[in-house]
Amino acid sequence: MKSDLWIEEKCDNIMGLKFKVEKTLFSGQSEFQSVDVVETKGHGKMLLNDGLVMLSERDEFVYHDMIAHLPLFVHPCPENVLIIGGGDGATARETFRHHDVKRCVMVEIDKMVVHACKEFIPSCSCELDNPKLDLIIGDGVKFAKETKEKFDVILIDSTDPIGPAQPLFGEEFYRDIHNCLNDNGIVVSQGESPWYQNKMQNKLMSIKSKLFDVVSVYNFSNLTYPGGLWSFTFASKGLHPIKDFKEEKVSKSGLKFKYYNESIHKAAFALPQFQKENVQEFVKG
Amino acid sequence: MKSDLWIEEKCDNIMGLKFKVEKTLFSGQSEFQSVDVVETKGHGKMLLNDGLVMLSERDEFVYHDMIAHLPLFVHPCPENVLIIGGGDGATARETFRHHDVKRCVMVEIDKMVVHACKEFIPSCSCELDNPKLDLIIGDGVKFAKETKEKFDVILIDSTDPIGPAQPLFGEEFYRDIHNCLNDNGIVVSQGESPWYQNKMQNKLMSIKSKLFDVVSVYNFSNLTYPGGLWSFTFASKGLHPIKDFKEEKVSKSGLKFKYYNESIHKAAFALPQFQKENVQEFVKG
Repeated sequence: MKSDLWIEEKCDNIMGLKFKVEKTLFSGQSEFQSVDVVETKGHGKMLLNDGLVMLSERDEFVYHDMIAHLPLFVHPCPENVLIIGGGDGATARETFRHHDVKRCVMVEIDKMVVHACKEFIPSCSCELDNPKLDLIIGDGVKFAKETKEKFDVILIDSTDPIGPAQPLFGEEFYRDIHNCLNDNGIVVSQGESPWYQNKMQNKLMSIKSKLFDVVSVYNFSNLTYPGGLWSFTFASKGLHPIKDFKEEKVSKSGLKFKYYNESIHKAAFALPQFQKENVQEFVKG
Repeated sequence: MKSDLWIEEKCDNIMGLKFKVEKTLFSGQSEFQSVDVVETKGHGKMLLNDGLVMLSERDEFVYHDMIAHLPLFVHPCPENVLIIGGGDGATARETFRHHDVKRCVMVEIDKMVVHACKEFIPSCSCELDNPKLDLIIGDGVKFAKETKEKFDVILIDSTDPIGPAQPLFGEEFYRDIHNCLNDNGIVVSQGESPWYQNKMQNKLMSIKSKLFDVVSVYNFSNLTYPGGLWSFTFASKGLHPIKDFKEEKVSKSGLKFKYYNESIHKAAFALPQFQKENVQEFVKG
């Protein structure tokens, strides 16, 4: 008899998400977190950190389209991009599809994530050897404080605010991010769930609204995050995610996406009423 | 030790959703399906038919806002509304918030659903004794074939196409629905998941596109349906869900919602690229 294997993620001990597993491809414990790669039935390969689903091959394009293409199409010429986190490589993969991008620095704290994804999830990690990528294994918080470089677009591709990602949800970190953004720079951050983590979403929005001229939040819905609906927070020194979005740039780019398109770009900022009321005091610009 | 109770719904045996249960309030077997009402931890009361989550008190407003208010704000004067299914009462509850509505006929096949929700989920069933409601316990397919009445808006608030709801996903039923719609009528139907049931979504869209002048699909994201992202299909004899939507009607109505608003109305029709490509041959108008 073949065993019936499932991986299961619980949220606040009130709900859980389960996925059927064919086999475990990698299982390790780094100095920061546990790292697992499994082959699922129906969702392709799946990466888990500390038992939480980070991505599945079936739907990772939703998250990665929305973290990368939305700000990269708002910025008129995103030449220098910084990714904090993103060890699986898929945010870098999408970033390099934009021909404006001349250089991308990626600072991932956990080399085990990078190695596991390089070996077992090449569909995500395929651009990690791109010569335009400067991959630094190190602490993104420290990097943001110490770097002298300036970036056009910064993508905070972090896990939830537990474990190594905790400082990425703090005000000091965002002061440093503000400092290493060019004058028309944009920062987009994994923004948690408007349903289950609305306090953390508000905290992130409130930090950004203290520091940036334009602050907003936009949504997507994927298969593997509890609640389905999930958010990115957007902040910039002036560029507005809709007013400064030139729709024709998307078709002119010739790029094809599985989730993102011009309509989704704008629709993502239409918030459910309950979320709109939660965040409205922090929205700026 | 208090027992650790969960209800669990599996989808295609590749993923599952679990919710923590405090206690079972009702458990019955009707001639059509099993019917359960449970008190959950964190999601309020929950209705399950044949073990599938129909609604939770925490997020049912998403589904019911979107099935009812979207077409009711597109139609210039929806006086007569027909609901097929909807035994929990929440679609009728939202329908009666529109003062244009003079009469609503609701045809629910399973009286056990109605009775269980009347007794245990009054937050949903609270309008089932509204004098403007004609509640018929019977077969919606038969009703649509035989009625001589005409309706302005018809809402197909059905379960998945297994068990009693199966004929509600067929062409013959929609021919009858077309017949009992007024000349500027609209029909909105529970449209399944663009991820896990895209074939059924396409089937429903293809049937509607044979019969109606305007056909479209729109999305919402809730907590209790597998995959989060879910759809309604829209069809009408002429009214367009966006071009004929007078935004000011919403603020003039004085109604307040938890999910629906003017921006969500329009944004719901912005489809993820993969879904857009799946359904585009059936979109009309």
